[in-house]
Amino acid sequence: MIGDLSVEDFSQQLAAGQPTPGGGSAAALVGALGAGLVSMVCNYTVGREKYADVEMRGVLARTEELRAQLGRAVEEDVAAYGSYADAQTLPRETDEEKAARDAALDAALRESTLVPLAVAERSAEVLELAVRAAELGNRFLISDAAVGAELAGAARASAELNVRLNLGGIEDEEFARACRDRLEAVAERVRGRELVDRTRSVVEERAAG
Amino acid sequence: MIGDLSVEDFSQQLAAGQPTPGGGSAAALVGALGAGLVSMVCNYTVGREKYADVEMRGVLARTEELRAQLGRAVEEDVAAYGSYADAQTLPRETDEEKAARDAALDAALRESTLVPLAVAERSAEVLELAVRAAELGNRFLISDAAVGAELAGAARASAELNVRLNLGGIEDEEFARACRDRLEAVAERVRGRELVDRTRSVVEERAAG
Repeated sequence: MIGDLSVEDFSQQLAAGQPTPGGGSAAALVGALGAGLVSMVCNYTVGREKYADVEMRGVLARTEELRAQLGRAVEEDVAAYGSYADAQTLPRETDEEKAARDAALDAALRESTLVPLAVAERSAEVLELAVRAAELGNRFLISDAAVGAELAGAARASAELNVRLNLGGIEDEEFARACRDRLEAVAERVRGRELVDRTRSVVEERAAG
Repeated sequence: MIGDLSVEDFSQQLAAGQPTPGGGSAAALVGALGAGLVSMVCNYTVGREKYADVEMRGVLARTEELRAQLGRAVEEDVAAYGSYADAQTLPRETDEEKAARDAALDAALRESTLVPLAVAERSAEVLELAVRAAELGNRFLISDAAVGAELAGAARASAELNVRLNLGGIEDEEFARACRDRLEAVAERVRGRELVDRTRSVVEERAAG
């Protein structure tokens, strides 16, 4: 399990001349770290007298779910790549073998697309919750909310790029269209850099005030 | 050592209601992961016949240095926070005690500012090298170069925000000005989102071509 690797070993393996872990896993991990920072802000807000009127328990429950899901996506991205690499080694002498190999490659490519698509959606949600944490959370931790937003934004953008590049190799137009629709929905939620920039403005205002 | 924690434990401790690791360490780690992805692209480019004319050995040596430095900054950020928290517990009954405590707090706050300042500078350099890797590196790994750029960009922006927030608490105008000059130099190199966006465009062109 990648999650059992030390932080230093993960960084080392990312850098190495081996196919996994790669950008897809790194993006998922960064989304998970963004979720973790929003959870941290919530943990310093929930139960504090000064923030008694602020409802952050629900946000915390959700960011912890997202952190777990994004952590699992680190592994899922490696597994999807493994399926693709395995499919490439299948025999292709007979027509039957060729058809079986094509089907295996196709299934692996879909999986390699669906994993970052879910990372993009979940990171977008982390970003939305980071805005809320920056606006309402413990003022002493607003910089953590802002970093959470930056990391979620980078994870979302990275995952989106991976989906788009994979869609270039997918022939099933219906599948590709459904994926593009989901990406479009994510893009509408985060509006480019707008949510990341808004978090930054909120933080600068609250730090000054 | 934080780097010895498993990836899952790091994410868990980030989320927890404890002061460290926090956004500063997360930003440094994300910068290190960005450097790791650029190293990965270099490792798939150096020594390949198809890329014999491309000089990436120097880029690889530099991204590996930056990855190590950014990895150490994960720890340095925690240590700087610890110095500040320790200084806060110093006695402040007599004038002498007050002066010693103020000096310790001041030294800790400077350190808490210099660590993210170096993270911002190093992440900016990772970003510059990610552009080069996207332009010249192995075409099969261009998405990794683009994710490297996104992560380095987020680490740079996060570290810059931490520097700015800390500078608000520093009275030594000369120190503050020197820090702001260094931030300004970083900003001129990365030009907002320009380098991140350029990497993305390069990747999309090369993927299509």
